[in-house]
Amino acid sequence: MTPAIPAGSYAVRIAATQAAARAQGVRALLIGVGPELEWLTGYEAKPLERLTMLVIPAHGDPVIVTPRLEVAAAEQAPGIGSGDVRIRSWLETDDPVDLVWESVPAGADAHLVVSDTLRAAFLLRLQAAFPDATFDIASPVVGPLRRAKDAAEIALLRTAAQAADRAVIGLAAGRLVGRTEADIAAEVRTRLVDEGHDSASFWIVAGGSRSASPHHEPDGRVIQAGEPLLLDIGGRLGGYSSDITRTLWVAGEDGAGPDDAFRRIHDLVLDANRAGRDAVRQGVPAQDVDRAARAVIDAAGHGADFFHRLGHGIGLEGHEDPYLVEGNAEPLIVGDAFSIEPGIYLEGRYGVRIEDIVVCAETGPDVLNEAPRGLLVVSGI
Amino acid sequence: MTPAIPAGSYAVRIAATQAAARAQGVRALLIGVGPELEWLTGYEAKPLERLTMLVIPAHGDPVIVTPRLEVAAAEQAPGIGSGDVRIRSWLETDDPVDLVWESVPAGADAHLVVSDTLRAAFLLRLQAAFPDATFDIASPVVGPLRRAKDAAEIALLRTAAQAADRAVIGLAAGRLVGRTEADIAAEVRTRLVDEGHDSASFWIVAGGSRSASPHHEPDGRVIQAGEPLLLDIGGRLGGYSSDITRTLWVAGEDGAGPDDAFRRIHDLVLDANRAGRDAVRQGVPAQDVDRAARAVIDAAGHGADFFHRLGHGIGLEGHEDPYLVEGNAEPLIVGDAFSIEPGIYLEGRYGVRIEDIVVCAETGPDVLNEAPRGLLVVSGI
Repeated sequence: MTPAIPAGSYAVRIAATQAAARAQGVRALLIGVGPELEWLTGYEAKPLERLTMLVIPAHGDPVIVTPRLEVAAAEQAPGIGSGDVRIRSWLETDDPVDLVWESVPAGADAHLVVSDTLRAAFLLRLQAAFPDATFDIASPVVGPLRRAKDAAEIALLRTAAQAADRAVIGLAAGRLVGRTEADIAAEVRTRLVDEGHDSASFWIVAGGSRSASPHHEPDGRVIQAGEPLLLDIGGRLGGYSSDITRTLWVAGEDGAGPDDAFRRIHDLVLDANRAGRDAVRQGVPAQDVDRAARAVIDAAGHGADFFHRLGHGIGLEGHEDPYLVEGNAEPLIVGDAFSIEPGIYLEGRYGVRIEDIVVCAETGPDVLNEAPRGLLVVSGI
Repeated sequence: MTPAIPAGSYAVRIAATQAAARAQGVRALLIGVGPELEWLTGYEAKPLERLTMLVIPAHGDPVIVTPRLEVAAAEQAPGIGSGDVRIRSWLETDDPVDLVWESVPAGADAHLVVSDTLRAAFLLRLQAAFPDATFDIASPVVGPLRRAKDAAEIALLRTAAQAADRAVIGLAAGRLVGRTEADIAAEVRTRLVDEGHDSASFWIVAGGSRSASPHHEPDGRVIQAGEPLLLDIGGRLGGYSSDITRTLWVAGEDGAGPDDAFRRIHDLVLDANRAGRDAVRQGVPAQDVDRAARAVIDAAGHGADFFHRLGHGIGLEGHEDPYLVEGNAEPLIVGDAFSIEPGIYLEGRYGVRIEDIVVCAETGPDVLNEAPRGLLVVSGI
């Protein structure tokens, strides 16, 4: 059975957000459609040109301003249907910003924060309507709370990770030689859903020298025997994301594996992946985890071939805080979930990336993915 | 064969945008990931936390600021790979706002406009980096240009509309009775893609009294014989959207149609749909098309049961300008494409909506959908 977020969680999250707002001198949070709304209410609203906005005052009761047409959908959200959030609906000829204005307590000379993914068009309208207010992003208020995943959230992330594991293992066991990247990408989408995801989110399938392009788009190129195949895939399950990368060797009929040069690169990336995982501990600055993995690759003289950050947070968003990147000195906290995904990319030859999702637990790293990480040589026939 | 946007279109669109910017006293457009970027360059970039930003100065050459990881994808876009837009890439430890800043000509006391769907987090960073600039949305500059669809765009919209027509007709001809809404929704997604869409976007399947909720989410309820079934479905094809609604009557084995009351409602909505289509002519205020359709429903005493606007523009976005709604006095222009979708919703009983995509042509309405609009009584067995 898919784990679920307990219905009572939403009221607790809103109360914690209000406490953080008070501590930071924020008058109110103005939350548009997006992951913050989903985390606060369980409402996965459609991103529309019609404004939907959850107003959470530092003091007082939260209100959601919603188009008349979306009221029924909003009411079905567990954190709204519970009655903890009052609905104020607007008609096609109303200006919803007026309703937001009426829901923000006590005057305009306030420090207001908006959700990071709110559309600029909405923010500019709010700025015009509240000319004396100062605006900032909501992530300093709500971000630290969202980062600390609770047991139900970790259970969802684990269920998603293990579904992605099975999808990768299933792909590796099947036919690959002679198929196009696009065809394998279609199989990725099907397998992600068949293994339990609600939807597939991305499906990087990069054969041969394409594996040297970290964000390659699968196309009509045909997979050959005797080349690497990089799979970086993920989907959503109960709102939470999966994200796994494995780099296989497709041997074909004769079963011959790669040469020593490729094996060395794969070993190096695996060592970096392990060093990254091993560095995860509460209180460690995020950039130190990046450094731990990068040091392995740097020492082997491949520093310039690992030109992206080590990882990104994961949860209701596929990419969210914390980012494991040089310059982010923020210490890890218990409940942080993120990818560890070092890579080495040799233009014109091949690339290797090995990615796992890791949670920062009380006791250290809790690695959610279980698919084998060692070099997998498959026939692909 | 799928129609395509000629490669030369992008340079023409950028030049027209620059002319509009000069006419409106705008120093530069700052375009994030989204439909404006797609329209200006053909680049359908992923919405990421990493900033991608096309800078179009009123005078001078356009530049796209893009993460190092996305350079290969950006170069594949027809309007960028052509060399008409220079790429400036940033590394993980750079601040991309610095590159935007360097690309905006001549000082900060400028009127800058940002794409409507840019993330608030990016806008706030830009506002902090350009404290003396004024910021506004880009749609007054680029919107009128995007509204006037050219022949290639209309061909794509027509191809998408006709694919959606076939999907609806196929659904109506198949088994419906005894299936859940969710199961039929899965068939909608498959049919939209099988008929030529690149992806399905939405799939409202609302049986019986659910049809009275305009944005109903399909769920586990089973379709019965002797009830209406509202289908509102659409997808994307070559970047352009389809959107069609038909309300069927599912008769079951005995083939009995609905009673006179339902037929009267269906006739009324059809009359309103026709009145809306017939009112389409260049120079007519958008709200007048809404009024023409609404007058039919008002006159029959059902005004309060038609509580949404008549329609929305459609193109690279499923919903875009122009909106056919009271209060929008903007005159229609040749090339405007929009939905005409009146509905009557009787809470607890049923709802009817009939939707077509219409282009405002030189000579009047060009209706892209061809699926029958008259009441379709199907057995559904």
